[in-house]
Amino acid sequence: MRLERYGHGGDLWTAAETYGHPVEDWLDYSSNMNPWEPPDVVEHLIKEHWREITRYPDPAVRRLRSKLSEAYRIPADSILVGNGAAELIDLVVSALQPEETVLARPSFSEYEEAVHKAGGRVRSVSLSRDQQFELRDAKEFAGHDRTVFLGHPNNPTGRLIPTPVLDELRESGTRMILDEAFMDFLPDESELSYIRWASESKHIQVIRSMTKFYAIPGIRLGFLIAHPDLIRRLKNLQTQWSVNFLAQLIGEAVLDEHDYADRTRAWLLEERPWLVIELGKLGLVVFPSDVNFLLVALPEPSDWNVRRLQQAMAERGIMIRDASLFQGLDASYFRIAIRLRQDNERLLKALKECLQ
Amino acid sequence: MRLERYGHGGDLWTAAETYGHPVEDWLDYSSNMNPWEPPDVVEHLIKEHWREITRYPDPAVRRLRSKLSEAYRIPADSILVGNGAAELIDLVVSALQPEETVLARPSFSEYEEAVHKAGGRVRSVSLSRDQQFELRDAKEFAGHDRTVFLGHPNNPTGRLIPTPVLDELRESGTRMILDEAFMDFLPDESELSYIRWASESKHIQVIRSMTKFYAIPGIRLGFLIAHPDLIRRLKNLQTQWSVNFLAQLIGEAVLDEHDYADRTRAWLLEERPWLVIELGKLGLVVFPSDVNFLLVALPEPSDWNVRRLQQAMAERGIMIRDASLFQGLDASYFRIAIRLRQDNERLLKALKECLQ
Repeated sequence: MRLERYGHGGDLWTAAETYGHPVEDWLDYSSNMNPWEPPDVVEHLIKEHWREITRYPDPAVRRLRSKLSEAYRIPADSILVGNGAAELIDLVVSALQPEETVLARPSFSEYEEAVHKAGGRVRSVSLSRDQQFELRDAKEFAGHDRTVFLGHPNNPTGRLIPTPVLDELRESGTRMILDEAFMDFLPDESELSYIRWASESKHIQVIRSMTKFYAIPGIRLGFLIAHPDLIRRLKNLQTQWSVNFLAQLIGEAVLDEHDYADRTRAWLLEERPWLVIELGKLGLVVFPSDVNFLLVALPEPSDWNVRRLQQAMAERGIMIRDASLFQGLDASYFRIAIRLRQDNERLLKALKECLQ
Repeated sequence: MRLERYGHGGDLWTAAETYGHPVEDWLDYSSNMNPWEPPDVVEHLIKEHWREITRYPDPAVRRLRSKLSEAYRIPADSILVGNGAAELIDLVVSALQPEETVLARPSFSEYEEAVHKAGGRVRSVSLSRDQQFELRDAKEFAGHDRTVFLGHPNNPTGRLIPTPVLDELRESGTRMILDEAFMDFLPDESELSYIRWASESKHIQVIRSMTKFYAIPGIRLGFLIAHPDLIRRLKNLQTQWSVNFLAQLIGEAVLDEHDYADRTRAWLLEERPWLVIELGKLGLVVFPSDVNFLLVALPEPSDWNVRRLQQAMAERGIMIRDASLFQGLDASYFRIAIRLRQDNERLLKALKECLQ
């Protein structure tokens, strides 16, 4: 049985069912979470304020939008908070209803799913392995009558779209939906993010997650930045009280966790190059990443394919992401999160045992 | 400014903003929550298991569906869990896309909003004050080419639809979407609920909330019962990981809280008739209710209207629901939850002061 039975990495629940190990026993390299524990304030808030779930959450998410507005220096009425980035991906596609949406492959499967839910069609543009799966040329995406949905940085490659390419798209009037779910892992986030454009332009929307960086995916929290006119339309379409109380409360607090953010970014700048080198020593091909996960290819020729490797790793209690499920990649690719050193050493040891 | 700025009762956040009292200081009669604290297990689970929000929730909600399947004796594949009943209302209408949906007025405003989001139109059938706003006749609703969306019990009236009326609708082949958000307040829930029909029939869907009865609206949790074929379609349309981890965990546990359920139902059987009588002594007209809230009308003629009464009560720290926002009711109607005796006495005292 595929561990990605529900179409995604991080489905430890299916892995637990399949292998009979409880969810908490897995070393999870398949979901791209910050490996540091959530900031202490999360525990504190939950334990002190849980009783407030006896009231409805604020349907307008006022306090969190106000904090986001300060943090990103954009108007609060250009921000919509959602039940995870996943809700916002569905919502924006459902509101805009583009006939055709252009995707760069490989990319996060939710974009295509959202397009199909909304009754639209996808046009795929392949990123090339020779160019390290980087989106280097705006040509096949640009056009004022076009809609593109792009990961910035992209998933599963972890690669940013170069600013000149984004600027060319923007200047061409292309409608751009940018998924910046992993942008906060970058030290120079504020220069690289397209948020500032999204709050002003009618044809640029940016989606952010708050759960990867703060390691709280179980609570669901994301936000979308767009022109206030579009925000109003989206809000009218959004389910009432979609964002639960604890998600709102936690979201407000983590934005002040500057030490946590600095520590995460500093750790990543050190750990990523080290892990890349160690994986290379095993004969694996690692593609350049700007964030906290890596796309990896098995060496060619190889007796291995990623399904077999995933199973062998699962038998060792480690879950990796089968990247062959991303259109544009084959059974020689997998994706792993970057975790803390001790775990990474365990990962490397297990990979070595499997591949030798 | 209307306190129902976001279209609903329970929006203490707007009330707090308007009157400058913090949210926690209000005595809230506008949202229909169980006034007992949530079962102790809720606090225990949150404090012991909060750390598991560092993982994604189970996208298939397997454990909670399995518990619901046992509790209601229906197959797990006829159950879809949602981010509150609100998500399921939107989802089922969006999937079925009825051209016209028949509503009994007054009724919960989300039905109409969901129909409009899905691009459909509403046909309203008025319930009559002479018949205590009870749905006594299937005639205007029945038809094999028709879709009806009904509250069972209805909100804001609190009134069940009589079983013979439901049976006539069912036998006529009418597509019935039933909102049973308050059904668990009834001691004979299992005979009255239409769940058993929904799991088998292609034209009956039942939506349930789990947050009113257990007083946990801040965490968002509801479920829908339908034929497994429709459940699969809805699941494909639903946002990924829509149901957060804590909601799933709490949902599993509260289903075992039989003492809590018994105590709530016993309290309500005693408190409701008492409060009805006391409200009557103030000259108010109270309509018969089967659940934990009451639709009330000001006496005629009266110098009062509900907007003025709502404001006068708000100045006393008590929030009531302006029911004139329900189509089919005018400015002489308001709705109140039934709370514990001490609060109800405070409510009565404040009403008396206002109305004398």
